[in-house]
Amino acid sequence: MAALEPFSSRWVPLPEHVRLLTDPDRLPDGFRAAGVAAGIKPSGGTDVGLLVSDAVETTSAARFTRSGTAAAPVLLTRERCRLDAIRAVVVNSGNANAATGSMGLQDAAKMQGAASMCAGVPEDQVAVCSTGVIGVPLDARAVVKGLSEARGELRADGAGDLQRAIMTTDLFEKRAALAVELPGGTVRLTAQAKGAGMIQPSFATMLCFVQTDALLSIATADLLLAVCVQRSFDRISVDGQLSTNDTAILQASGASGVIVEPESDGERLFGEALDALLRELALAIVRDGEGSERIGRVVVRGGHGPNVERTARAVANSPLVKTALHGGDPNWGRIVQAAGMAIVDAAPLPIDVAIEGVQVCVAGQAIGHDVEELAARVKGPEVEYVIGLPGDGFETEVFFSDLGHEYIRINAEYTT
Amino acid sequence: MAALEPFSSRWVPLPEHVRLLTDPDRLPDGFRAAGVAAGIKPSGGTDVGLLVSDAVETTSAARFTRSGTAAAPVLLTRERCRLDAIRAVVVNSGNANAATGSMGLQDAAKMQGAASMCAGVPEDQVAVCSTGVIGVPLDARAVVKGLSEARGELRADGAGDLQRAIMTTDLFEKRAALAVELPGGTVRLTAQAKGAGMIQPSFATMLCFVQTDALLSIATADLLLAVCVQRSFDRISVDGQLSTNDTAILQASGASGVIVEPESDGERLFGEALDALLRELALAIVRDGEGSERIGRVVVRGGHGPNVERTARAVANSPLVKTALHGGDPNWGRIVQAAGMAIVDAAPLPIDVAIEGVQVCVAGQAIGHDVEELAARVKGPEVEYVIGLPGDGFETEVFFSDLGHEYIRINAEYTT
Repeated sequence: MAALEPFSSRWVPLPEHVRLLTDPDRLPDGFRAAGVAAGIKPSGGTDVGLLVSDAVETTSAARFTRSGTAAAPVLLTRERCRLDAIRAVVVNSGNANAATGSMGLQDAAKMQGAASMCAGVPEDQVAVCSTGVIGVPLDARAVVKGLSEARGELRADGAGDLQRAIMTTDLFEKRAALAVELPGGTVRLTAQAKGAGMIQPSFATMLCFVQTDALLSIATADLLLAVCVQRSFDRISVDGQLSTNDTAILQASGASGVIVEPESDGERLFGEALDALLRELALAIVRDGEGSERIGRVVVRGGHGPNVERTARAVANSPLVKTALHGGDPNWGRIVQAAGMAIVDAAPLPIDVAIEGVQVCVAGQAIGHDVEELAARVKGPEVEYVIGLPGDGFETEVFFSDLGHEYIRINAEYTT
Repeated sequence: MAALEPFSSRWVPLPEHVRLLTDPDRLPDGFRAAGVAAGIKPSGGTDVGLLVSDAVETTSAARFTRSGTAAAPVLLTRERCRLDAIRAVVVNSGNANAATGSMGLQDAAKMQGAASMCAGVPEDQVAVCSTGVIGVPLDARAVVKGLSEARGELRADGAGDLQRAIMTTDLFEKRAALAVELPGGTVRLTAQAKGAGMIQPSFATMLCFVQTDALLSIATADLLLAVCVQRSFDRISVDGQLSTNDTAILQASGASGVIVEPESDGERLFGEALDALLRELALAIVRDGEGSERIGRVVVRGGHGPNVERTARAVANSPLVKTALHGGDPNWGRIVQAAGMAIVDAAPLPIDVAIEGVQVCVAGQAIGHDVEELAARVKGPEVEYVIGLPGDGFETEVFFSDLGHEYIRINAEYTT
C-alpha cells in the first residue's frame, strides 16, 4: 500500500489534545540528527544516521528484540549503554551486523566509539542500531567515515535524514511530528520508524526512535515506552518473524521545560499522545508490509487469556487468511481453521466470527448472511475480524498485512 | 513441482525387502474401492469415494487432527466408529463439512448410514472423511446419491478412483503400491493420500488411507500407524496450518494369511515398509505444496528437546526461509533469524548452520565459504539445512515446501 495521511485509520484516532504538525523534519528542542550515504547499501542510498540530544540531563528508555540470535549492536547496547540516559543513537542500514560473532561486537563498539566522538557525548550514552542483511561482516570503517561526515550535518530539522538512513525495503517513510498540549504547556513529540518485513515484534520491534522536549523522569519514560510498545509494535505482524535487531528508543531532552509528573494528568495526556503516535507508526509498518495491498485487524475476546492471544496470533500469521485478505476474499473458514489450530483438543469449539460487522459464524456454526455485502466490505483497505471464544474477561488485537505476489517477489529476490 | 517417481528422493530410500509394484490401482486382497462424481465439486470432478474391506475380521487404526475446530466427520468418526475395526471409509472432497454445527454432524451421520448400506457393513465400522472448503453446508443428499452409484462400481483395482475422489488443490496423485517380503510370505501394502495446502499436521494429517492384506493385531496396527505417522505426516509443513479434517486410517484385511506377530522380525519389516510408504507420501505432499518448486529438509540437533523441535518448526514455517528456498537463494541469515525467534532470551546463541554440506555459520558467527558453490547447490530440487544448537542428545527433521507465486495465486483466488 502507499503511505496514507497520518491518523487516517479508524483504528488510531488522534487524541483531542494532540495536533499533527506540518513540519515533520523538525525535531523537538535539544535534538539534532543527520543521515549520510556511507556505502553500506549497494544502492548508494543514505545508510548511516546519527541522532543527538544536546541536553546533558536527557532521560531515556529502550526496548529490544528477545531473539536468541540478537545482533551485535543489540547485545552491545544492552550491555554497554546507560539505557536510561541515552544521549546519542548511531544507526546503519544495509547490514544487520547479526551472526557476525566477536568481530561484529567489535564493529558495533567502533560505531559506538566514533559516534561518541562525533556527538560529543560519553560512549556509554550512545546506543547502536543496525538493520539489513544478516551474516555479512559490517564494513565498520565505512560507517565510521560516514559518521565523521554526519557530524558536520547534524541539524534540528534532520528527522527526514535520520529516517532515510534507517530504511531498507520500506516503500515509504514512517514518521510523524506532534504537538501535545499538557497542563504545563505544549511539548513536541516526534518519531521515526522503519520496518516492512521480518516483523512480529516480541516486546520491542524493528527500529523506532522517539524524541520529545518534555521533561520526563527515568521511571516515567520507561513506563510509558513499555506500555505503548505493548500496544503498538507488539501487536503487529507482517510475516510472523521476530527480528534480530528490533530496537525502540525514547529520549526526552526536557528542553521545553514542561515537566511530566508521575501519575499526573500530564503523564496521562503525554501517554495518550505517545500511544497514538506509536500505534500510527506500527500501522504504517503493517501497511508497508512487503507487498501489502490491504491490512487486517483481528480482535479476539474470551475467557482464557492465552487462548485469546494464541488465536489472534494464529489468525494474523496464517498465510491462508493473509492470502484471502489479499484477494479480497471473505474466506472466513480459514479464520475458523486458524483458531482451531491455536486451541487444540477443544473441538467442538463454540466460536463466533464477524467480518466487518457481518456475523458469519455463531457457536462454531456457519450462519446465513448477505454474501455480496460481505464480499464488498472485504475489498476495502482495512478489514476487521472479530472473534468470540467462550467466556469473558480477555480481549486482544493484532494488526496484520496481507500476503501477495510482491512479498514473494521481494523476498525470493532480496539477496544475501 | 511435478510428481516424481516414487522413492526417488535421497531422503526416503526403499528398504531392501520392499518392491514398488507397477499396478498401483490394485488394492490388497479383501479391499474394493470406487470414486464417483456426485456434484460436490463445482468442477464436476470425482468427489465421493468409498473404500471397503470385505474381511469381517479387518483390524484398523486411525489418527485425527487435534484442531479445536475439527470438522463434523472427524468428530463423528472419533465418537461413533470402532476405530480398531474400520471396515469401510466414505469420503467426499469439495466440502470439508467444517464449521457446520449440528447440521454438519447430521450430514456426516447420513454419509455413515448410507455407506453402511452400500458397503454392507455395520454403521459403527464406517469412518467418514471430508475435505474442501470450510463453513459451507454439505449437500449430503448429493453424497448419498453418489454413494449408491459408487456401490455398483466397487472394484479391487479401484485405488485410483478413490485417489481422485479425495483430491482438491492437489496437482498430482499421491499413492503407491508395495510388495513387502515378510518371513511368513509376501504381503501387499497400498496407500492413497491427499494434501497440498493447509498442511502442518499435528499427530495426524490431511487424508491418508492405507490398506494391507497382512494380518495385524489391533495393537500392532495402532502401534505401527502411530510411529509411522509421527515420522512422516507429522514432520512436514507446507504452510504451517493445522487442518480441521486431517485423518489417517490403516486397515488390515488379513486376506493374505500372512501374520505379523507383535515384536517379531515380521513386525519390524512391515513397519519399515509402512514407514517408507508414509514418508514417501508425506514428501509427495510437500512436493505438491501449493506452488512448490523445490523442497527443503531441516535437521536440527542439540541438547534441549523443545528447543530442537521449535527451531525446526520455526525454520520450516518461516516465510523468509521459504521464499529464499523458492528463489534458489542461500540466504542463511534467515535461518539464524528463525532459530533466534524459536529460542528467545538466549543471545548470543552459538548456532551452527550448514546448507547442502556447506558450513556457513559456526558458533553464531558467519564463516568464509565458497559462495558460488553454495549458490549452485541450493538451486536443486531438494535442499538440506543442518542446524546445530548447543549440547547433544536430540535430533529432529521437518520437510517443507518453498513459498512462491503459485501459493499466492492459488490461495488468493481459491474461493469460499
